This record gives sequence, structure tokens and C-alpha cells, in this order.
Amino acid sequence: MTLKSDLDLVNRLADAAGQAIRPFFRSAFAHEKKADTTPVTEADRAAETAIREILERERPEDGIIGEEFGTTRETASRQWVLDPIDGTLSFMAGRPIFGTLIALLQDGWPVLGMIDQPIANERWTGAMGGETLFNGKPAKARRCKSLEGATVATTSPHCFSEDEAAAYLRVIATAYGKNPWPLYGGDCYNYGLLASGHVDIVIEAGLKVHDFAALVTVVEGAGGQMCDWQGEPLTAESDGRVIALGDSARLDDVLEALHAA
Amino acid sequence: MTLKSDLDLVNRLADAAGQAIRPFFRSAFAHEKKADTTPVTEADRAAETAIREILERERPEDGIIGEEFGTTRETASRQWVLDPIDGTLSFMAGRPIFGTLIALLQDGWPVLGMIDQPIANERWTGAMGGETLFNGKPAKARRCKSLEGATVATTSPHCFSEDEAAAYLRVIATAYGKNPWPLYGGDCYNYGLLASGHVDIVIEAGLKVHDFAALVTVVEGAGGQMCDWQGEPLTAESDGRVIALGDSARLDDVLEALHAA
Repeated sequence: MTLKSDLDLVNRLADAAGQAIRPFFRSAFAHEKKADTTPVTEADRAAETAIREILERERPEDGIIGEEFGTTRETASRQWVLDPIDGTLSFMAGRPIFGTLIALLQDGWPVLGMIDQPIANERWTGAMGGETLFNGKPAKARRCKSLEGATVATTSPHCFSEDEAAAYLRVIATAYGKNPWPLYGGDCYNYGLLASGHVDIVIEAGLKVHDFAALVTVVEGAGGQMCDWQGEPLTAESDGRVIALGDSARLDDVLEALHAA
Repeated sequence: MTLKSDLDLVNRLADAAGQAIRPFFRSAFAHEKKADTTPVTEADRAAETAIREILERERPEDGIIGEEFGTTRETASRQWVLDPIDGTLSFMAGRPIFGTLIALLQDGWPVLGMIDQPIANERWTGAMGGETLFNGKPAKARRCKSLEGATVATTSPHCFSEDEAAAYLRVIATAYGKNPWPLYGGDCYNYGLLASGHVDIVIEAGLKVHDFAALVTVVEGAGGQMCDWQGEPLTAESDGRVIALGDSARLDDVLEALHAA
């Protein structure tokens, strides 16, 4: 399997997912609550089913880790990690800033990733050692001269434990001073915007592997960096505390603020 | 001046604003910080200038309250209230969920309002006593059987004072129980989505008249209700604490939770 053919495949997977998702956007549809109360929609399941059908046909030996339907062939060295609708709340509220996330892990390391927004038709793809593309054109994260004045995004203050919230708020206090107006909401879309040079830093906690695996190569192929709250690279084993930086020169500042207590 | 001619005008005002704004979206552009650190962009100013030029020509006796360029003819009984880019942070981060807000006040009461999203080409218009339109078709807010299970949105937890945050969190606790996942981000766009039946409740504080004046007729013409945190109708004199409800039957529940302390 070459990277080229995997990249071609991932585009077709996202096309199929988008086709499954679009009819449900802003339509009345059934939804239920899972044990952890994340809303699950028919769209979510239809999209993962569409992706799995193609993977089973074209990559029958690869494993699949799906948000909706669990793990298949978990001992395979190549694992496709799927989150058909990341940002389910945004999707259900009719915001066009959710995304389909597809990643390929090789021995636990992200080597390929995609964020696809099927309503606005926006797609970021990244591959280890390659250049991130936004709708087919190179995406570049921007430089960030200091943590003071940086644009910081996180999906929800409720993603943090009490200690994590205190750490996050130290970063915000350094970035914004007395007028803290970080960006909220956004889910995976924030990482795409970071890769395109519109956001400097994303900090989150409580993410699962299907939430972050696809983001790593997108951010790093645009010149940015992703890591956990210790500055370590993200793998399938990471604890779900995530930092994305458009400019890796700011890593020490962020870690210092996070761990200043 | 008839409502019909004012509605026609407001569509042309938003067209002009959108034309001024679009070239700046996701482009490098100069921005500065005002005294209150809200980012001001060239786009903001270009859009308000475009709107004001048309108003000065076509409604020379009406007053204008603009977010960027202040108040003109403040004693006029008809006042146009302009927020060329509501959701400046979203705009600057490249999210297509900011909006141009245009309202007409008659003796301080909102009689006409528009939320325009010029990137996604989405437009909500509402007029007192009339039906809200989304891209020219009727928009309807949805029923909401109980505060438990309602979808609640707010732009940022930082919009609240300490007391306001406590009140807001009581609403969230009732709506979501142990897994609080309200929607964050969104600014005016949340109110449009509420008018279209995708969100049940929006609660915010610290809004200025240019932030909320345009929302009132959009929400109410879709069958919803807007009021302050005492349940009183919003006017130019309101204190910036705002509730929007898709289903006015939930007002007492929300007020009870807000004031339960």
C-alpha cells in the first residue's frame, strides 16, 4: 500500500461519508443518547457504515477503530480511525463547522489524517512527512511571536476537570490578559483553521483517539505541532489532553503556563 | 416609509455589507484593538461605511447607531442599529458563523431585524407582526417540552459576571444534568439557528444594543420569544442580559433556574 493510494482512498472515504451525512443536516432526524450522553445520530451511523463498506472491500487486512461501531481486527499494524461526525452538537444545531475525521495509524502512530466539512465543502488532508492540503492547495500555519496576543480556541470549558480548567485558564490569562475572549465551540474545525493560519493554539482535554488521530498530520504537515500536555507526541495511547500549535516555538510558553501551579 | 420598502432596503444594506466583508474573510488584514479590546477589522469598518452610505442617501432623516462609527441623529424616532460583523472573533478565525446585524428601532422598539451570513449566504429577516424568513422561506422555531433535555447555546462563558455565571450554570444543570454539553461560540448565528428550529435556548449577558436589536424580530417572527433576565421585552434601554427561547412556554422554567439562588 503506497501513501498515494491511501490518500486517494481517504478522499473517497470522505466523499462517501459526506454523501451519507448531507441529507440529515438541518433535517428532523432521530437521535438518541449513549451511555456517556454524546448524541448519536442516524447520520453518524450512516457515514461510518459507508466508510466501513469501502474499507472492508479495499483494505480487508487493515484494522478499523470507529466511534460508532467499535474496533475490527485490533491486532493489525495498520488501523483506520473513524469519527464520522466530530462535533455532533454543532451538527445537530445546524452549524456547518463539524467534521468527518479519518486517520490511518501505523503501529499506533498517525501517518495520514483528514478533516472533511461536507456542508461547506472544505477538506484538510495531511500525511506524515508531506504537506497539508486544504481543498487541494497547500495550507500553512502562521507564526506566533508570543503567547501574549495569541488566538486560543477550545470547544467547551466543560471538557476540563477542575485542575485542567485551572491550567487552561492560566494559558488564557497569559494570552488575553484582562479581557479573556478565546474562541469556543469548533471541535475539529479549530484544528483545520489552525493549519490554515487563522488560529494559533488549541488546547483540549478528554479527547478520544478518534477525536485527535486525524488532526496530527493535518496540523504538522502545515508546519504546526501537536502533542499532549507534557509536550509528548500523540499516539493511540495518549491520555486525551491535547495541544495544537501553529508555531511550535510557543510550546514551552504553553507548557509553562499549563504547569505553573 | 412602508415596512415593505424598509425590508427591501435592509436586504440591499446586507448585500452591500457582504460585498465589503467577503474579500477580507480568511485574508491577512490589519486589525487593531479598541479600548475594550474587541478586535476591529478593516472589514467591519468597510461594511458599516457601505451601509451608512445607502442609509444617508435613502433615509436621510433616520438615525443610525453603528458599532464602529457611533450615533447619528440620535433624536430621530426611527433608528437603524448596525453591527457590521457580529462575531468578530469567529470572523478573524475564519469561521463562517459570524453575521451582519441590521435592525430598525421605532421609538426604541425593534420593528425590523436581519442576521446575514455573507460567506455561507444565509440570511434571516424578521419584522414586527410578520413572519421570519430564512433565505426567503418561512423559518419556524421548534417546540421544547421541558428545560430538561433542551439545547442551550451561549457564545462564551467569559460573557458572564460571577453571579451571572452561577445563574447560567443553574440553567445548564437543569437542561443537561450530569453531562453538561451546551453549545459555545456562535454569536448571532445561534439566534438564527434557534429561529430555524435547531436550538432551543440562548442565554447571554453583556450584550450591547447593536448585538441584540436585530435578533428580536427574527426570533419572535419565527414563533419564539426574546426578553431580558427578568422576562421583560428588549428595548434600546435593556441591560444586555438576554434570553432567547424557541418555545415561550419555557420562559418560567428558565427564569426560575436563573433566579433560584
